[in-house]
Amino acid sequence: MSLSDAIAPPNAARAGPAPALRARRLGIDTLDETVLFLRRDCPVCRSEGFESRATVRLRHGPREIVATLYHVTDHLLGTDEAGLSDAAWKRLGLTDGDRIEIAHQPPLASMGAVRGKLYGRRFSEEELRAVLADTAVGRYSEVELAAFVAACSARPLDAEETVWLTRAMVDVGDRLTWDGRKILDKHSVGGLPGNRTTPIVVAIVAALGQVMPKTSSRAITSPAGTADTMEVLTRVDLDLPEIRRVVEAEGGCLAWGGGVRLSPADDILIRVERALDLDSQGQLVGSVLSKKIAAGATHLVLDMPVGPTAKVRSRAAAALLAQRLEQTAAAFGLKTRVLVSDGTQPVGRGIGPALEARDVLAGLKLDEQAPQDLADRAVALAGAVLELAEAALAGQGATMAAAALRDGRAWAKFQRICEAQGALREPPLAPHRAPVLAGRAGRIALIDNRRLARVAKLAGAPEAKAAGVELHQWLGNPVAADEPLFTVHAETPGELAYALDYVAANPDLMQLAEG
Amino acid sequence: MSLSDAIAPPNAARAGPAPALRARRLGIDTLDETVLFLRRDCPVCRSEGFESRATVRLRHGPREIVATLYHVTDHLLGTDEAGLSDAAWKRLGLTDGDRIEIAHQPPLASMGAVRGKLYGRRFSEEELRAVLADTAVGRYSEVELAAFVAACSARPLDAEETVWLTRAMVDVGDRLTWDGRKILDKHSVGGLPGNRTTPIVVAIVAALGQVMPKTSSRAITSPAGTADTMEVLTRVDLDLPEIRRVVEAEGGCLAWGGGVRLSPADDILIRVERALDLDSQGQLVGSVLSKKIAAGATHLVLDMPVGPTAKVRSRAAAALLAQRLEQTAAAFGLKTRVLVSDGTQPVGRGIGPALEARDVLAGLKLDEQAPQDLADRAVALAGAVLELAEAALAGQGATMAAAALRDGRAWAKFQRICEAQGALREPPLAPHRAPVLAGRAGRIALIDNRRLARVAKLAGAPEAKAAGVELHQWLGNPVAADEPLFTVHAETPGELAYALDYVAANPDLMQLAEG
Repeated sequence: MSLSDAIAPPNAARAGPAPALRARRLGIDTLDETVLFLRRDCPVCRSEGFESRATVRLRHGPREIVATLYHVTDHLLGTDEAGLSDAAWKRLGLTDGDRIEIAHQPPLASMGAVRGKLYGRRFSEEELRAVLADTAVGRYSEVELAAFVAACSARPLDAEETVWLTRAMVDVGDRLTWDGRKILDKHSVGGLPGNRTTPIVVAIVAALGQVMPKTSSRAITSPAGTADTMEVLTRVDLDLPEIRRVVEAEGGCLAWGGGVRLSPADDILIRVERALDLDSQGQLVGSVLSKKIAAGATHLVLDMPVGPTAKVRSRAAAALLAQRLEQTAAAFGLKTRVLVSDGTQPVGRGIGPALEARDVLAGLKLDEQAPQDLADRAVALAGAVLELAEAALAGQGATMAAAALRDGRAWAKFQRICEAQGALREPPLAPHRAPVLAGRAGRIALIDNRRLARVAKLAGAPEAKAAGVELHQWLGNPVAADEPLFTVHAETPGELAYALDYVAANPDLMQLAEG
Repeated sequence: MSLSDAIAPPNAARAGPAPALRARRLGIDTLDETVLFLRRDCPVCRSEGFESRATVRLRHGPREIVATLYHVTDHLLGTDEAGLSDAAWKRLGLTDGDRIEIAHQPPLASMGAVRGKLYGRRFSEEELRAVLADTAVGRYSEVELAAFVAACSARPLDAEETVWLTRAMVDVGDRLTWDGRKILDKHSVGGLPGNRTTPIVVAIVAALGQVMPKTSSRAITSPAGTADTMEVLTRVDLDLPEIRRVVEAEGGCLAWGGGVRLSPADDILIRVERALDLDSQGQLVGSVLSKKIAAGATHLVLDMPVGPTAKVRSRAAAALLAQRLEQTAAAFGLKTRVLVSDGTQPVGRGIGPALEARDVLAGLKLDEQAPQDLADRAVALAGAVLELAEAALAGQGATMAAAALRDGRAWAKFQRICEAQGALREPPLAPHRAPVLAGRAGRIALIDNRRLARVAKLAGAPEAKAAGVELHQWLGNPVAADEPLFTVHAETPGELAYALDYVAANPDLMQLAEG
């Protein structure tokens, strides 16, 4: 039976262009959620039949975004006005009074692939490309992002899907190119509090004439990211030409990755992954490697701390993850080596942006009080990346790195990098501090990294730069009763009290064995 | 090695009670999302370190809810004020100027079970109970709800998990009890446009002396739910005592289920399931049966339309779903029978609240123009539920039901039920109407239920009660060129144009074979 369309073509298109309203910035900060507020009785809601919580498409000139619509029933807006969240305002590039067009958002075809994956089908390369493209431009709602993250957890990506995901993440953003030079990079998988080796590694590697254009993230759930720590010391929101200028001059930079669009979908996905506390190997690999590939890295060393309260909890899990990382990186010609390290306790003394910056400066300046574990880790990582890039003979990397740190070349390079980015500043000291004391004598036998990080966050880190935890004791140390275990730093009395309350409710976040 | 807590107990609790702010209703309708707006520089954000998009716990007297916090950077609020969405305002039972306490929300333990399910573990009964309890009181965020829905899709619930889910859904809400009487019920699985049999079935069954206290939902993604249609004819937002009074007097009611708390978690989950277009058998079974069990049903007939553009697309899928529904219902002592029916085209003439109400009235009043398919389906369903409840001999149910419809007893009963609920009203007629014409002669060979429903929604249904689609042709009918296929009804010219544009872009939503 041959079928044909039943319906006669209309004489002319019936609806005109999408209706427009005057844009108004409402001053509502939703982070990166794009939200539109309209009066229920405005002409657009009436004629388009937009209900509250509809997904709509907004257009202003050439720019187009997707937003969630909420009805405003009251006095907040006129019926000729469209209220926008800060994120929507910025992404449309608006100024007050601009007119925006508001239209229905057509259904997202790429969500079909996500449903298929949940039901057990494999992603194709084209499907992952479409999912990531839609994610990067903000077409996915929160629940759709959650479904994608859940699908990758329930139906793990295989090796090929992981390569496709990584490539799609790279391709939806900008890329840095460095005309054939070796570009060195390092990354820590899984936050260990205080593990702020990156600034020291960059300083050492650049001091030895190699190129390491480092872009780092801010903290998402941890008390500090490298960008938060570096922001205490210098300016980090560099754009691509500034990154290039600093790196051409000094061989390295320490910039915030959020100022450039390297793997922009990663920032969107990682927020949902952390909100759900869902780790999938495929998304972790795609997240780490897409940023490095987009930044133009050719040689990458990954620090992977292993411990019961670290992200990677066993040597066996570390080996599997390392293998998938190395395999995937190889598909992009990115030489990668994973260094498994001790993740049983925090690194250095400080946890929080300014406190970690103090450790970094002490290590570079060779202070007597500098935490030795931080310097040792930085030297090992710098040595490994030098060897991987064949800038050091096998077995000689750590020796070269240690020499550059010991003779002051790394400190000199660090100062020049900070000056090229703006200026080198002194870290602030928090005005409100309180020690936490040992309840009895004994030997430190266990430190819960996650809960100690939580204390630092409750004290205000990373937004309050000076806030955090200053550790006085490490595993194996003998302590006397009433000896300080750590000191909580805060910028306000309320935050100090809040963090100390959490400590009081968690007296087992450090544990003692008989002395 | 024996370990002990390292940390000395504090001398006294350090932080006081959760800080309080003055509540202000901002007039923002987020449907059921509970949202809190605070100035970034208010004392609570400062002392608690609340970031934008934090999940927080709000308390007012004995009431407690969870809300998403957004920072307001501007002139919307004072630093001593807390702005609330309408849903948060209602759930806390606030009046202007009330003080609310705002505290950190502790992590949700039950999300661990959702993560475990995604990774392949089975739910325990206790876990499902905890997930549903947290869902019902609003502790799950949108992304967490999406993860739960995705987990049930990726890792289907087995028979026992489905029983546990159903029981947990019942237990978190209210229940109706009917002291030992047989309580009849019917439900359609999967919306077929215009399939508004329920009012006719209730009228027939109650006219025959049986008890059918029907609570129905409003449309979520369809152009009309039974509650939307009945609202055109009478008042439907009855509370539990009103339902009981109407049912005691007339043997039946036709109320909106949203006015009572029967399986309240279902309303929350179903919204996310539909947003994601994810169907899991377990959640579908739990959704349907939990509402019926909570309403006190003892005998249930399920109408399951099967067709390529219906929810259930094949006889095989229908058989599997029917088996799981019957098995699960049996665990609760609920006698259930599934009737598989034709789902290849809409039922009746109208799609949309008032248009469907017209069909219902015509069927009950025995108008010559009444759509016969709607009456036939209602009689079959009424007959089946009468037989299931042993109120009719096997094979005699449909005959009894047809007689009650034909001799006017059903129409009389329907009028008395509507009067007991308020009054019987006439359905409105839409002021803006346009016919859609056949492009050529032929025989109707295919009708796309989903896209025809979309036309009705774009025309304004279900919010615009008179809006929708009036069908003039059914499968097999011969049509001439330019003969009307259906008429679009709308309350505004903009909505009419919008729906007609969609029709013009989808000329294949009805298809013709050679005459």
